[in-house]
Amino acid sequence: MKLLGKMAVICGALMMLATPVMAEKKIKWKLAMTWPSTLAPLATSAIQMSQMVSEMTDGNFVIRVEGKEKHKAPLGIIDMVKGGQYQMGHSASYYWKGKDITSVFFTTVPFGMNLAEQNSWLYYGGGMALMQKLYDKFDVYAFPGGNTGVQMGGWFRKEINSLEDLKGLKMRIPGLAGEVFAKLGVNVTNIPAGELYTSLDRGTIDALEWVGPGMDIKMGFHKVAPYYYTGWHEPASELQFLVNKRAFDKLPAGYQVILKTAMKAAGVEMTTENFDMSVQAWSQMEADYPNIKVKTFPPEVLKAMKKATDEVMEVYAAENEEFKVIYESQQEYMDKARKWTMMSEYYYLQTSELVGNE
Amino acid sequence: MKLLGKMAVICGALMMLATPVMAEKKIKWKLAMTWPSTLAPLATSAIQMSQMVSEMTDGNFVIRVEGKEKHKAPLGIIDMVKGGQYQMGHSASYYWKGKDITSVFFTTVPFGMNLAEQNSWLYYGGGMALMQKLYDKFDVYAFPGGNTGVQMGGWFRKEINSLEDLKGLKMRIPGLAGEVFAKLGVNVTNIPAGELYTSLDRGTIDALEWVGPGMDIKMGFHKVAPYYYTGWHEPASELQFLVNKRAFDKLPAGYQVILKTAMKAAGVEMTTENFDMSVQAWSQMEADYPNIKVKTFPPEVLKAMKKATDEVMEVYAAENEEFKVIYESQQEYMDKARKWTMMSEYYYLQTSELVGNE
Repeated sequence: MKLLGKMAVICGALMMLATPVMAEKKIKWKLAMTWPSTLAPLATSAIQMSQMVSEMTDGNFVIRVEGKEKHKAPLGIIDMVKGGQYQMGHSASYYWKGKDITSVFFTTVPFGMNLAEQNSWLYYGGGMALMQKLYDKFDVYAFPGGNTGVQMGGWFRKEINSLEDLKGLKMRIPGLAGEVFAKLGVNVTNIPAGELYTSLDRGTIDALEWVGPGMDIKMGFHKVAPYYYTGWHEPASELQFLVNKRAFDKLPAGYQVILKTAMKAAGVEMTTENFDMSVQAWSQMEADYPNIKVKTFPPEVLKAMKKATDEVMEVYAAENEEFKVIYESQQEYMDKARKWTMMSEYYYLQTSELVGNE
Repeated sequence: MKLLGKMAVICGALMMLATPVMAEKKIKWKLAMTWPSTLAPLATSAIQMSQMVSEMTDGNFVIRVEGKEKHKAPLGIIDMVKGGQYQMGHSASYYWKGKDITSVFFTTVPFGMNLAEQNSWLYYGGGMALMQKLYDKFDVYAFPGGNTGVQMGGWFRKEINSLEDLKGLKMRIPGLAGEVFAKLGVNVTNIPAGELYTSLDRGTIDALEWVGPGMDIKMGFHKVAPYYYTGWHEPASELQFLVNKRAFDKLPAGYQVILKTAMKAAGVEMTTENFDMSVQAWSQMEADYPNIKVKTFPPEVLKAMKKATDEVMEVYAAENEEFKVIYESQQEYMDKARKWTMMSEYYYLQTSELVGNE
C-alpha cells in the first residue's frame, strides 16, 4: 500500500504534467483604440471582436480593449502596437498620414471607391498586399476593421452656390479633403472635437465635416447649421485592426485563424451598425428639424473639387513612388468597378426612386 | 518491479481516460448545397466556412461540403437538414416558396431593399427574428450566407420600348418576378439551365434572367441577346446557411460561436468575390461584344412593374398574416433606410459620375 501510495502520487504528477500540454495555453492581450470605448459604432468593432475571440477559445484567449480615455494616445496607436505595449490596435490608417502619406489609401480618398468597390479592391485587386507592404514598415499586420460608408460633406451655416462662396470660408475639414478645399480658397482650420459645436454656433467657423447622421446627431451640429452637404471626400472610410507581428506569429495556428475570422466578422458588424445608426438618426433629425436642407454642391464646385483632388494626388505621386503605385492600382480598379456599380446599384436606386417605395 | 509495472499500466490507462476529456471531441458534419461544388461564387461561401471552422478547431470540427452533383437534391436541402441527413445546408430561402411563401423575404423581393439596407434590417430592424420564426417550422437555425447584390434584369433579344412589347414575350423568369411579369402579359416559362442558351439563340424564348455578369458570362447569353436590362426584381439576393437545431444545440458553446463567426465571415467573402467577378466579367463582355446595350426599362414599364409587384404582394398579405407582418416590417424599414441610401451612396455616385473618374 505504501508503494501504491507513492505510485499514485507519481501518477497524479504525470497527469498534472500532461494537462497543460493538452489544454490550450491562456493568452492575454491588450488592444488600444483611437476612440473612447463608449463611442458606437467605432468602438463596437474591437469590443465585438474581443468577445468573439474569447468565446471561440473558451476564455483562453482574452483581449482587453482600451479606449482613448485610458491610454490617452489616440493618434499613437501605431507606435504602441509596433512597440508591443499593446498587441493590437483599432484605428484608421489615414491618421498616420504624417508618418507615411500612402496610409491614406487604406482608409479612403476624395472621389475614391465606394464600400463594395474598396472591399473588392482589397481582396481581389491587390489592395491587401499593398496595405501590408505599408504596415511592414511598422512590424504590424493590418486587417480591415469596419467601414463608415459614405461620409457626409458636412454642416454649413450658409448655402454654397458658387466657387466664390468657398473663398475665405472657415471650415474644419482635416486630411486630404482639407488640402483640396485649401486650394479652392477655404480657410481650413483644426479645432478640438469638444469645441466644435460652440465654434459653429458662434460663427467662429462657417462649416465643418464630421461623419454622418449616426455620429453627427450627438454633436448637435444640425441645430446650428441647416445645410447638410452630401459626401465627396470620404466615400468609404475603412478602419483597421493592427496586430504586432511578433505577437501574432507566436499564436498557435488555430488562434491566428480565430483572430482573423473574428476581425472580419466584427468589422462587418460595425459597418452594419453604422448604417442603421445613420438611418435612425437621419429619420429623427428630419422629424425634429424640418428646416435641415440636404444639398449637393453645384456642378461647378464639384468639378473644381475633383480637379483640385487630382492635382493634390498627382503632386504626391510625383514625389513618392509608393504613392504612385497604390494610386494607380486604385484608379485602375475603380475605373472597371464603377461601371458595374452604376449598372447595378446606381440604376436600381434610380429606377426605384422613379417608381417610389410605397 | 512487478507491482511498479502494474501501476504504470493503471497510470497509463488513467491518463488515456483523462485525454478525451481534455482534448476536444472530434465532430464530423456534412453540408449540402443547392449548387454544384465548383460554382463560384455561390459555392465559395460554404467551402470557405468549412475551411475556417476546421482551421479554428485544429481539425477537430470538420464539415464535408457536398454540391448538388453529389446529393442530387438541389431543392431538397431544407428537408435534408430538417431530417438530419445533413447537419447543414447552403441555399436561398426563396426556393422554399412552395412550402412557405414568407421564405421569399429572406432572399430578396422585387423593388425591395438593397444589400446594405437588407443587412441592416436583418440585424437592427428585427429581420433575424422574423427569419428564425420561419425556420423554426423546419427545426432549423438560419444565418445569412452571402449576397449577390443587385441582379440584372436579364438578356433580351429585342428592345423593350413599351408595355406592349412585354405582351406575349416568352421569358424565363422564376419566382415573384415571374408572377409580376405574367400580370403584364409576359409568357413566363421555365426551362432547365442546360437548355437556356440554345432556347435563347433559337428564339424559343425571347428573354431570360440569370444573375449578373459574373455568373452570366459562362452561360454565353451575351452572344445571342444584345439587350442587357438593369435590375428591379432581385436587388440583394441573400443566401442562407441552415443548421439542424439538434446538431447545433449539441455543439460545445465555443464551437457554436466558431461556426457562427465562420458563417458570417464566409458570407462576406462570397459577397465580395461575386462583386469582383461581375466587375471582371462585365469588363470582358464589353470589350469582346461592344454591341451589348445596357438598358433600363422605360418609366411606363417600370411603373407598371411596380404596380403589379404591389398587387402580387398585397394578395399574399391578405391571405397570410405572417406574410403581412414581414412585408410591413421590410417596407417600414426600407422607407427610412432608403432616405439614407439616397443621401449617401446614391448622391455620391451621381456626383462622381458628373465629374468623371479620370
